[in-house]
Amino acid sequence: MTKLSTQPYKGARDFYPEDKRLQNYIFSIWAKVCQSYGYEEYTAPVLEPIELYASKTSDEIVNEQTYSFSDRGGRTIVMRPEMTPSVSRMVAARRQELPYPLRWYSIPDCWRYERPQRGRNRQFWQLNADIFGVPTVDADLEMISMADAMMKAFGAKSDMYQIKVNSRKLINLIMTSYLELDDMQSKQMIRLFDKKDKLEPTDFVSQASAILNDEQKVAGLDKLKVLLKAKTLAELPEEITNTQAVKEIQILFSLLADHQIESVRFDITLMRGFDYYTDIVFEVFDLHHDNNRAVFGGGRYDGLVEKFGVEALPAVGFAIGDAPIENFLQSHLLDPLLRSTTDVYVVTVGDTLGQAQDVAKALRLAGVNVAVDITDKKPEKQVKTALKLGVQYLLFIGQEEVEQQKYILRNVESQQEDVLDIDGIVTKINNIAQ
Amino acid sequence: MTKLSTQPYKGARDFYPEDKRLQNYIFSIWAKVCQSYGYEEYTAPVLEPIELYASKTSDEIVNEQTYSFSDRGGRTIVMRPEMTPSVSRMVAARRQELPYPLRWYSIPDCWRYERPQRGRNRQFWQLNADIFGVPTVDADLEMISMADAMMKAFGAKSDMYQIKVNSRKLINLIMTSYLELDDMQSKQMIRLFDKKDKLEPTDFVSQASAILNDEQKVAGLDKLKVLLKAKTLAELPEEITNTQAVKEIQILFSLLADHQIESVRFDITLMRGFDYYTDIVFEVFDLHHDNNRAVFGGGRYDGLVEKFGVEALPAVGFAIGDAPIENFLQSHLLDPLLRSTTDVYVVTVGDTLGQAQDVAKALRLAGVNVAVDITDKKPEKQVKTALKLGVQYLLFIGQEEVEQQKYILRNVESQQEDVLDIDGIVTKINNIAQ
Repeated sequence: MTKLSTQPYKGARDFYPEDKRLQNYIFSIWAKVCQSYGYEEYTAPVLEPIELYASKTSDEIVNEQTYSFSDRGGRTIVMRPEMTPSVSRMVAARRQELPYPLRWYSIPDCWRYERPQRGRNRQFWQLNADIFGVPTVDADLEMISMADAMMKAFGAKSDMYQIKVNSRKLINLIMTSYLELDDMQSKQMIRLFDKKDKLEPTDFVSQASAILNDEQKVAGLDKLKVLLKAKTLAELPEEITNTQAVKEIQILFSLLADHQIESVRFDITLMRGFDYYTDIVFEVFDLHHDNNRAVFGGGRYDGLVEKFGVEALPAVGFAIGDAPIENFLQSHLLDPLLRSTTDVYVVTVGDTLGQAQDVAKALRLAGVNVAVDITDKKPEKQVKTALKLGVQYLLFIGQEEVEQQKYILRNVESQQEDVLDIDGIVTKINNIAQ
Repeated sequence: MTKLSTQPYKGARDFYPEDKRLQNYIFSIWAKVCQSYGYEEYTAPVLEPIELYASKTSDEIVNEQTYSFSDRGGRTIVMRPEMTPSVSRMVAARRQELPYPLRWYSIPDCWRYERPQRGRNRQFWQLNADIFGVPTVDADLEMISMADAMMKAFGAKSDMYQIKVNSRKLINLIMTSYLELDDMQSKQMIRLFDKKDKLEPTDFVSQASAILNDEQKVAGLDKLKVLLKAKTLAELPEEITNTQAVKEIQILFSLLADHQIESVRFDITLMRGFDYYTDIVFEVFDLHHDNNRAVFGGGRYDGLVEKFGVEALPAVGFAIGDAPIENFLQSHLLDPLLRSTTDVYVVTVGDTLGQAQDVAKALRLAGVNVAVDITDKKPEKQVKTALKLGVQYLLFIGQEEVEQQKYILRNVESQQEDVLDIDGIVTKINNIAQ
């Protein structure tokens, strides 16, 4: 018999209870903030037909990073690399019946065939929050407010992160009207903007220069310089500031100020990867010197739902991955100490298992989570097991305790012991748990 | 542009919020009962190497029902058809460090390429609960008690279901010593026992007869008759009752009686599909006349962990699917009325959106889930949206309410209206929610 490997699939993680506790903590904050804004949970199958992604998600993801295969019926299917196409599909299927504004969230796992690295796994979980049916900046405002509330709910302070905001409409305008680029040049320039933070300034200039043709070059590089200097909307070149796109961002920033969202900044270089964004885009960026990177982002994608052959529907959304949030929490020492969900570990002393089970049953009825040691090992060994499990309370049940109907409850941290009946134990545990 | 399909992948479901509420209810009951018995959550990737299933899961599932494919690195991988091989792999990977008894649960999605039908989808969710490290019937007892507690937590009464119990050891003994069958005959007879409930008695006898050879036939059919008549352990033929296997089941039944598990019955025909079961097996069976079928089951599988090249480890577990539980709840009218997670829907009357946002913010801080209508539609239309969403309370905010700082809270069901300040709203909602 050949020995089987105990390794998980490459780039995907096993979550042992201590890992799952942190994941559950992250998921619970996500769900709590979404629900507090009136978002309701939905979900969709991890398998989708390949057509759903072609020409919507980025080409790189579809062609090089999807898990795609044929099922036994010959259909080509994909393990979803992201959730936005699926949610658009579900909304399109009930376009007429659904009520708007429609606020939905989901926490799906997604798959991309990439080289695994810090903060990037092949399997990852994502919170997806989306609002459908609102064409005005009130929807963008709500999404950015929620993104900010998310960070605060994890314990972050406003100076730990920045929310960069830009507009695809503005970018398109800059590329075509201000820089006077053709389609191909625009695409290249957008890609160059997108990786600007990773380039030396001289490399950026030489690569930008290579995109421009001879007639554009001198004026173009000057215009680029002016553009990239602009750290606020007011500093944008005059040809641009009078446009509708800029006016919309101005309204958004004024509303964000009303809502005391302090971390927002205009950033003309912010692009966001997906091709389906149509207007405002934003990104939460970690300001920690050891983790200077994007945490998550989102934006408006008004054109996606209509691809399913229904009336167009405005949409704004964002997606947060589990690994980037974990990195953020760890960088800022915000990851909480999480204990076992088991409140009490019952240690049997002598032949008391039957009675210990009765005590456990009574405690469970009162809402206490109880594990009973059923190994018949020596009490010291049972205690060791409980400590390894990370349970906060030990309950010793020997013959004398059974007779008295009072049991010894030990707090593992403080080492304090109390002799309590069942009601006493329940009161003690429930006071701590709340 | 070709129109994309809005259908989900065949045999997999989209969960709209009203569907997801029921799924979340089922998951929350599962988690609550598991945690109350001291089980901790873990999870593993949905993709696993194909070797994990070959010769462990049933041949039918591996050869005909798996979603298997090659990844871009040429590895043959499978979307898990069940969780037991994965949890065994994870335990084997840390065989030495983990504390025993180890109690774990998980709620993974699993995939099988089958013809979709009622109670059976290609994608399904399963609660998996397992205890490792306990060779005695105390572990089987705990699992069956938990299975019973699960049913009770969903509101089931003892007479709505039966828990059938049998032993693979006993079955093997019957096949080899009592019926004197060879390996091939045993396998055939076990398969026949497994489908006994779906066969007419005469068909069962003729098929059993076909398995026996001429010398075995007369005595064999008589022995089978005696065997199948036995509805309790006491009614088993004498040659069997004196064996170790039967004595163990007797102890288990006596412990189950001590624990007031009323729904258990011995059932000599119960087999359970998976090849890895080694001893006690059990199955919860729906007694409703319209849904007379297995809801879920489990058993002992002591041999699986050692296949990973580590020291053997006793294990008992069960798995419950989401669809069978949904069917059970629906058959017995136990599916609860589930409302939106949104507590309050804010209807703006006139130009009050800014102030409505401030009220919403204050309510959220106090733990109330609030959606604000940001569409600027007429109040009647906003009310319609809220009703479609299934939100319990409407909050009307017009100019007068803003000035008074008191707002009109309407209970959608009772149609009762109260004029309340923010504290009053919080008190009202929180009293209802608890």
